[in-house]
Amino acid sequence: MSTPEHALSIPDLIAKKRDGLELSPNEIQQFIAGLSNGDVQDCHVGAMLMAIYIQGMTEREICSMTMSMRDSGERLSWPNYRGIVVDKHSTGGIGDKISIPLAPALAACQMKVPMMSGRGLGITGGTLDKLESIPGYQTQLTDEQIVQLISNVGCGIFSQSVKLNPADRYLYSIRDVTATVPSNALIVSSILSKKAIEDLDGLVLDIKYGSSAFMKTPENAEVLANWLFKVSELLGMKTCCYITEMNNPIGYCIGNALEIQESLDLMKYKQGHSADLEDLICEQGGRLLLLTNKAQTIEQGREMIRDTFKNGSALQKFHDMIIGQGVSPSIAAQLISNDEKAVQSILKLSDVTHQAISTQKGYVQSIASFNLGTIVQRLGGGRLKSTDKLDFSVGIRLLKHVGDSVQENEPWAILYAPHDASKRYPSFLDDLNSSLVVSLTPVQPLQRIYKILT
Amino acid sequence: MSTPEHALSIPDLIAKKRDGLELSPNEIQQFIAGLSNGDVQDCHVGAMLMAIYIQGMTEREICSMTMSMRDSGERLSWPNYRGIVVDKHSTGGIGDKISIPLAPALAACQMKVPMMSGRGLGITGGTLDKLESIPGYQTQLTDEQIVQLISNVGCGIFSQSVKLNPADRYLYSIRDVTATVPSNALIVSSILSKKAIEDLDGLVLDIKYGSSAFMKTPENAEVLANWLFKVSELLGMKTCCYITEMNNPIGYCIGNALEIQESLDLMKYKQGHSADLEDLICEQGGRLLLLTNKAQTIEQGREMIRDTFKNGSALQKFHDMIIGQGVSPSIAAQLISNDEKAVQSILKLSDVTHQAISTQKGYVQSIASFNLGTIVQRLGGGRLKSTDKLDFSVGIRLLKHVGDSVQENEPWAILYAPHDASKRYPSFLDDLNSSLVVSLTPVQPLQRIYKILT
Repeated sequence: MSTPEHALSIPDLIAKKRDGLELSPNEIQQFIAGLSNGDVQDCHVGAMLMAIYIQGMTEREICSMTMSMRDSGERLSWPNYRGIVVDKHSTGGIGDKISIPLAPALAACQMKVPMMSGRGLGITGGTLDKLESIPGYQTQLTDEQIVQLISNVGCGIFSQSVKLNPADRYLYSIRDVTATVPSNALIVSSILSKKAIEDLDGLVLDIKYGSSAFMKTPENAEVLANWLFKVSELLGMKTCCYITEMNNPIGYCIGNALEIQESLDLMKYKQGHSADLEDLICEQGGRLLLLTNKAQTIEQGREMIRDTFKNGSALQKFHDMIIGQGVSPSIAAQLISNDEKAVQSILKLSDVTHQAISTQKGYVQSIASFNLGTIVQRLGGGRLKSTDKLDFSVGIRLLKHVGDSVQENEPWAILYAPHDASKRYPSFLDDLNSSLVVSLTPVQPLQRIYKILT
Repeated sequence: MSTPEHALSIPDLIAKKRDGLELSPNEIQQFIAGLSNGDVQDCHVGAMLMAIYIQGMTEREICSMTMSMRDSGERLSWPNYRGIVVDKHSTGGIGDKISIPLAPALAACQMKVPMMSGRGLGITGGTLDKLESIPGYQTQLTDEQIVQLISNVGCGIFSQSVKLNPADRYLYSIRDVTATVPSNALIVSSILSKKAIEDLDGLVLDIKYGSSAFMKTPENAEVLANWLFKVSELLGMKTCCYITEMNNPIGYCIGNALEIQESLDLMKYKQGHSADLEDLICEQGGRLLLLTNKAQTIEQGREMIRDTFKNGSALQKFHDMIIGQGVSPSIAAQLISNDEKAVQSILKLSDVTHQAISTQKGYVQSIASFNLGTIVQRLGGGRLKSTDKLDFSVGIRLLKHVGDSVQENEPWAILYAPHDASKRYPSFLDDLNSSLVVSLTPVQPLQRIYKILT
């Protein structure tokens, strides 16, 4: 901090990046420290982020940035008997409720899973929003509550405390309004600085590509995935990076309460749950078991996760977790019961439903997740701006997956809509109906995984 | 303003420039309007300025930017009988007091000269600071006072009113701290938007290059000059652009009070005044007479300006101007008198002087204006930060110009220093002495003008 190198002023640091030069670790540390000590103002941040966006950053710079951000606030620390701590991060997709069954499944395999999650903005939902459709669920925990929950139950899904990584919150608030979100350097440092706080033994990253993902092509997703993988390994986290398809929704359900229901169905291993969802969770959970030597092969890892669903141990962990996060024992007990009516009455889906009907006989070729995400969002299930209140009761349940056969006039989806749906979004039903693409010839089931970096 | 094109948000506009695309005139207008209507925040400005710095702007964009900035506040308007309105702008140099004799000389040729000037920051002094070494001189005038002064006297040198061009002030305050000052697009729009407010018939621009100028090489200065010339003509201002040398000081004097004295000496046409200074003023003033058809040739224009010094008419206009700007008639009368003691007592030069001595016999090859500017600045005659108070009494009077012969041990400059000079700047005398470069062989007088764009 007090080396002569630090004679550079904040404008000098900005000029250096402006000219495409590499900032030293100390210089990056100086800039990030300036976010909290008052040396760096909003206008500096805007200019620096734009310079980073256009000029890029080297591997060394991204590592320094990530570490400086991680150290800008407190870090989580685990007791000595901590066990193996793992986490998963996804760049977000339609119907992506992976974390909700995954955390309890991993806990049931004796892993420690402190999942710091986010809220939804735009068409992709947020894990915390989905969980809040469970009455009483608390997302804001103190550091002490987090350590206790992870020690006792093994998993928790909560929001990032304001004491953790203030630099990321400041930078993100400026990125969001200065057209500097889609920068690989800034995405990597933001994601990994949050994960690095958790003091992890293993990390799985899921980088999505497609029409409803941030990255539109697998090629772009792969560039980002490579950066994430490289920097994560340099920071000493054992990491595996998945690149997965996000043109079609994950699983059968989209919408806050509905995705909790689908997660419960999987953890109850109910007949008719989505194989697409189950397979992705078993794959990513199994990978974490392999990464941390709890499984010898990926096949073994997958089966260990699947077993937690089959034998109800994941469901029990989910039950314990939500009680640990404020849900009453009676609600928790009803949710994990097989009393479907009780579950429904807690999750309160909208009683106004609309059916989407196929106009053609054939095979489901694709289901436009971008459209479905937009419909749920605009009908109140997602946010247009960060202060919007959510309507948990809105959602879409698919009756078909890619590859399934479909008859003319057969319903392929049910929309749970608000009473004033036509007022909020006049063409919602047309847009829903036009989201199904039917092929006359047979279609292969969806290949969700494009590539794995390990 | 209400065309569908305006659906773009401020972040969208930033993204467009970030990606190197051309912003439309309406889009630029929207951004500049946002500076005052609250749509645009500091972080947006930082990001947009950096995007402009790196991606550049087209001719059309710079014109739109200039016009939108011009229109961000009030504009000056002249009575119907206004006459020919002209102005000059220089990018600033050491000893650059050109405006001070030039404005009265042009007024003596029946031109109207509303010179909005600035203050000094860094090693180059500001015209307003120099004039404030005259007791009573007011730089802040109301719009009405300006119009009255220009109507009655013909010239005034004053600060830009806060009601004029608020966009430029806002943008500049951010450029200053975000490493986005040296952008041709931003320099051109800043300079020309200020001049465009004045409703000019003719404009001379003086772009300096050299060790103590913003542009270090004539080539860089020429790129900027070309932009200024092109955009100024597109905006309908008759313009001439000079590219001039700024390695050696202009004239004999550097420092606030001292430069007023030198300006008075020229307007009194006293023996021993600087030919370098006189020639540059006659050239640029004569050019404005030619541009506005008051002179038929540049030679005639130059002589018309020179005559105002020889016949005392410029001095009389200066007298009237400073009275119009708050100086008492008795001080004004003493300043233009030949009573050198009276002038000295008003301008109050420091009574602590140091001589700079040549260690060699030969010919003056160069005098490092960067060093001299730094010495005056650090001894209190210039600002290190914008809130610094100035010591008008500090300055350097050269006894030699480039090309003059010099003897061993002959003094070549006198420094008027504060009492605590050694404390403020321990090596000031060594640095002063080392600023003279002597050649053993004869040296040509300085060629100040590198190129003229007309």
